[in-house]
Amino acid sequence: MRQFINTKETLVTEAIDGMLRTAGGRLARLDGYPHIKVVLRTDWDRSKVALVSGGGSGHEPSHAGFVGQGMLAAAVCGDIFASPSVDAVLAGILAVTGKAGCLLIVKNYTGDRLNFGLAAERARAQGLKVNMVVVDDDVALPDLPQARGVAGTLFVHKIAGALADQGADLDTVTAAALQVIRGVASIGMSLDTCTVPGSPKEDRISPGKAELGLGIHGEAGIEQVEFSTARDAMTMVVDRLAPSMGPGPHVALLNNLGSTTPLEMSVLAEELARSRIGERIRWLVGPAPMMTSLDMRGFSVSLLPVTPVEEAALAAPVAPWAWPGCLPVGPVAVVPLPDGLAPIKPIPSRNDTTRALIDRCCRILIGAEADLNALDSKSGDGDTGSTLATAARALIGALDRLPLADHTQLYRAIGLELSQTMGGSSGVLLAIFFSAVGDASAAGQDPIGSLKAGLDRIQQVGGARPGDRTLLDALVPALEALPAGLDAAARAAREGADATARITRARAGRASYLAEANLAGHNDPGAEAVARLLEALARNEATGAS
Amino acid sequence: MRQFINTKETLVTEAIDGMLRTAGGRLARLDGYPHIKVVLRTDWDRSKVALVSGGGSGHEPSHAGFVGQGMLAAAVCGDIFASPSVDAVLAGILAVTGKAGCLLIVKNYTGDRLNFGLAAERARAQGLKVNMVVVDDDVALPDLPQARGVAGTLFVHKIAGALADQGADLDTVTAAALQVIRGVASIGMSLDTCTVPGSPKEDRISPGKAELGLGIHGEAGIEQVEFSTARDAMTMVVDRLAPSMGPGPHVALLNNLGSTTPLEMSVLAEELARSRIGERIRWLVGPAPMMTSLDMRGFSVSLLPVTPVEEAALAAPVAPWAWPGCLPVGPVAVVPLPDGLAPIKPIPSRNDTTRALIDRCCRILIGAEADLNALDSKSGDGDTGSTLATAARALIGALDRLPLADHTQLYRAIGLELSQTMGGSSGVLLAIFFSAVGDASAAGQDPIGSLKAGLDRIQQVGGARPGDRTLLDALVPALEALPAGLDAAARAAREGADATARITRARAGRASYLAEANLAGHNDPGAEAVARLLEALARNEATGAS
Repeated sequence: MRQFINTKETLVTEAIDGMLRTAGGRLARLDGYPHIKVVLRTDWDRSKVALVSGGGSGHEPSHAGFVGQGMLAAAVCGDIFASPSVDAVLAGILAVTGKAGCLLIVKNYTGDRLNFGLAAERARAQGLKVNMVVVDDDVALPDLPQARGVAGTLFVHKIAGALADQGADLDTVTAAALQVIRGVASIGMSLDTCTVPGSPKEDRISPGKAELGLGIHGEAGIEQVEFSTARDAMTMVVDRLAPSMGPGPHVALLNNLGSTTPLEMSVLAEELARSRIGERIRWLVGPAPMMTSLDMRGFSVSLLPVTPVEEAALAAPVAPWAWPGCLPVGPVAVVPLPDGLAPIKPIPSRNDTTRALIDRCCRILIGAEADLNALDSKSGDGDTGSTLATAARALIGALDRLPLADHTQLYRAIGLELSQTMGGSSGVLLAIFFSAVGDASAAGQDPIGSLKAGLDRIQQVGGARPGDRTLLDALVPALEALPAGLDAAARAAREGADATARITRARAGRASYLAEANLAGHNDPGAEAVARLLEALARNEATGAS
Repeated sequence: MRQFINTKETLVTEAIDGMLRTAGGRLARLDGYPHIKVVLRTDWDRSKVALVSGGGSGHEPSHAGFVGQGMLAAAVCGDIFASPSVDAVLAGILAVTGKAGCLLIVKNYTGDRLNFGLAAERARAQGLKVNMVVVDDDVALPDLPQARGVAGTLFVHKIAGALADQGADLDTVTAAALQVIRGVASIGMSLDTCTVPGSPKEDRISPGKAELGLGIHGEAGIEQVEFSTARDAMTMVVDRLAPSMGPGPHVALLNNLGSTTPLEMSVLAEELARSRIGERIRWLVGPAPMMTSLDMRGFSVSLLPVTPVEEAALAAPVAPWAWPGCLPVGPVAVVPLPDGLAPIKPIPSRNDTTRALIDRCCRILIGAEADLNALDSKSGDGDTGSTLATAARALIGALDRLPLADHTQLYRAIGLELSQTMGGSSGVLLAIFFSAVGDASAAGQDPIGSLKAGLDRIQQVGGARPGDRTLLDALVPALEALPAGLDAAARAAREGADATARITRARAGRASYLAEANLAGHNDPGAEAVARLLEALARNEATGAS
């Protein structure tokens, strides 16, 4: 079993109950399980023409998903791909039909025609007005008069449903349904067959092939075609549909046959709009799963020429969520990019002390490249040293264009440089750090407060905390100790960095994916870099070197 | 390629354009393809707090499908499973953020945190108010502080979206988002991995197994478990979620991870409602695809404890169709079966002539059993004779309870008997024929007119026409000739039946599936039965036998 079901015998009744439980009280079922599976509106008063549809299950949301104001009054559900019985259909008719009568909307399959047909006879013998229309929209076999009923049935539900909801009489509703049936044409294409619960999957379609003109019950397509791209697929479908198009504007219904992804369906919508009939398609229903074939990886397109009456009926709001709406097809609306994407270029300024400090920091990191790489190779991909050294070299090269005399702008400018020159998440994190320090400085914080604000921000964005075996384990204690002087900060950083060698469970960053044995006994390279930087700066300060 | 795409490089931009074309003008995109893929509202005036979300593509309808009034102001889309760039996020923020500020809703993945985080910094440097929240609802690994963000993100979009739409300020909206993030817990289960376009599918999950606690990027689940039924699957999911539940009522979000069928999702909804936590779930969002993982055959459940404020925010209507609503979970509403399902029992009456005629017809058909079976075996399964003979024997057995003296009731009663005793489509069609004849007779038609009405009805229901190689080819001409006497009718039936041997392209019924060679040279067994019946009756009449 590769399906989320309990047994195939209880599949349909359990699924209907699951749907009803979560329908917000809008739907009910008849008390006829397991033989009679009829879903009906709880807000239905029989004062208008009742639309009843149904057929085998496995096509969800058809048909029970379309029961509700503006569409069906009831849906009669058979077992998977099996017509419901005469009794079940009759129960559905009797449960919703009042003096205004009932229209049965049946897809063109022998079992459905006969069972719905006989149920209609029985209902008529009880004095009810019952009409029946048979939908045969599939153009896969153009010379077969017994064309199948497929997703074009939804147009009948929606247009007849809107008229019935507006209070039209049975003859008017029936005539509208027949008008739709005469005009609608559909065809499907699939890259894989469906999986019938309890049956092995038929492996009929080879990779590189597609079936064109297939039905919704796993029947083979009329032909297997070469499949290459979505564009070619839609071209083939359009070529089959174009001869059936009437004059004037059309509405298209783009149906997901089951497990085609939303991404693919959107690409197909784009290809339909770009196709040679795209200009003639004024409205689109979908893309959405409306008349599925279990998990079939395919789609179908249905086309209907529309008059203003039908356009209005298609656009009328309905209660069933499964109806995706009928929306105008138009060009892609494109909005210009906003201003401000290009970073504000800082105005360069001189400050020799600051310049010397930055240069010194960069050279310390460049000098530590090999050691840090070696350390990183024990728990990562061995490039921490090179990543920092590359960024340091770039920063040295940028010194002439940095706003060295304005600390607030300088922090932001360093962040910007790092985000543009330093790869990996550490580059982004350091960029965020310096940007946030700049923001805090701009807001009036003192240097240590600003540095702390930067630390807070990278903890929020990066998700790491002290103790997680990251550079925070050196940086946080160093910043705490900084008011006592650079020497104290360097000692605190060293203690913090050395402590990371005892943290064997990393909780953030790449090291979190490693086993404990790989982490024990050596320092985190990021923390080590911080410690080395501060130690070297402290030595410099002590010796007075610059 | 087993997907409806053109190239994997253009997949996301083409899909976005396809979605925009059919969004009824409600959505637009920034002019930044291919690097910057931002979908935004066209009806957004920046007067309220802007919600911006996004991340890698492949999770549709997340996030672009949730852009619209009451949810997101913009979605920033990366490539498949890849975080969007800092520039793309910044473009999204700048495009929709006004004085009220912006809330970034980010799923807890390093790339997203960093890129959204740095973009937020850049936007702040331009003076914009930007907050960022990180959703980490996945409880698959309860002791990992860096939990992933999965479908629970939708609760944040919806609740924060409703508050923002009502005009709440940035701090209030952010606080509500954080409250949701603290409360929400999610876990997923799948029977198969997803197929990343352009990559071979990983065949990691064997039949009979499921992955529990998997992510939405194809990463392996925390464990592989035995899979048997939907009930067991939901029990395992509930067992993982239950420890995270807070007190009081909860809302559940039942998410389709990709290609689980609607039937299965409804069964899972039923199992969730029946589970040990079912009583504590007051509301349900879905089942629907909301945060998918391409075509993954799986589902996830997210749970959130709710206060009346959150209930109201979840229930507020929104523009995006992809949001399936938040509906109360309740018992299955069951309506009693309607009266009238049991057929009206006819009141028996005597008429010796009618009785003799029916008896004679039945015996003629019983006598033709072997011949008709032999004929049918050439184009079908060889049971036409037996089917008719069985029905004839049953009708003889029913003679005592038929209303023989009332022709109208008699037709209906024969129809009822046939529908209950005669199998196959021919039984239903004859039942429909006699019922319709009875209806026409009740409406005042003369016998021949009534019989013609019956013929019309079975042509409508059965879909066959004269010339289609069915019993109509004998019955229709016979009825035309009947005013001239039984003998003329019999001759017409014989001519019609014999003509079917020359119809080599059947257009209806089972024979329509057969090749021409199988049909040429022998009569259709149904038409032959009609001819034999009328010929024998005519001989009887001529000889005066009864």
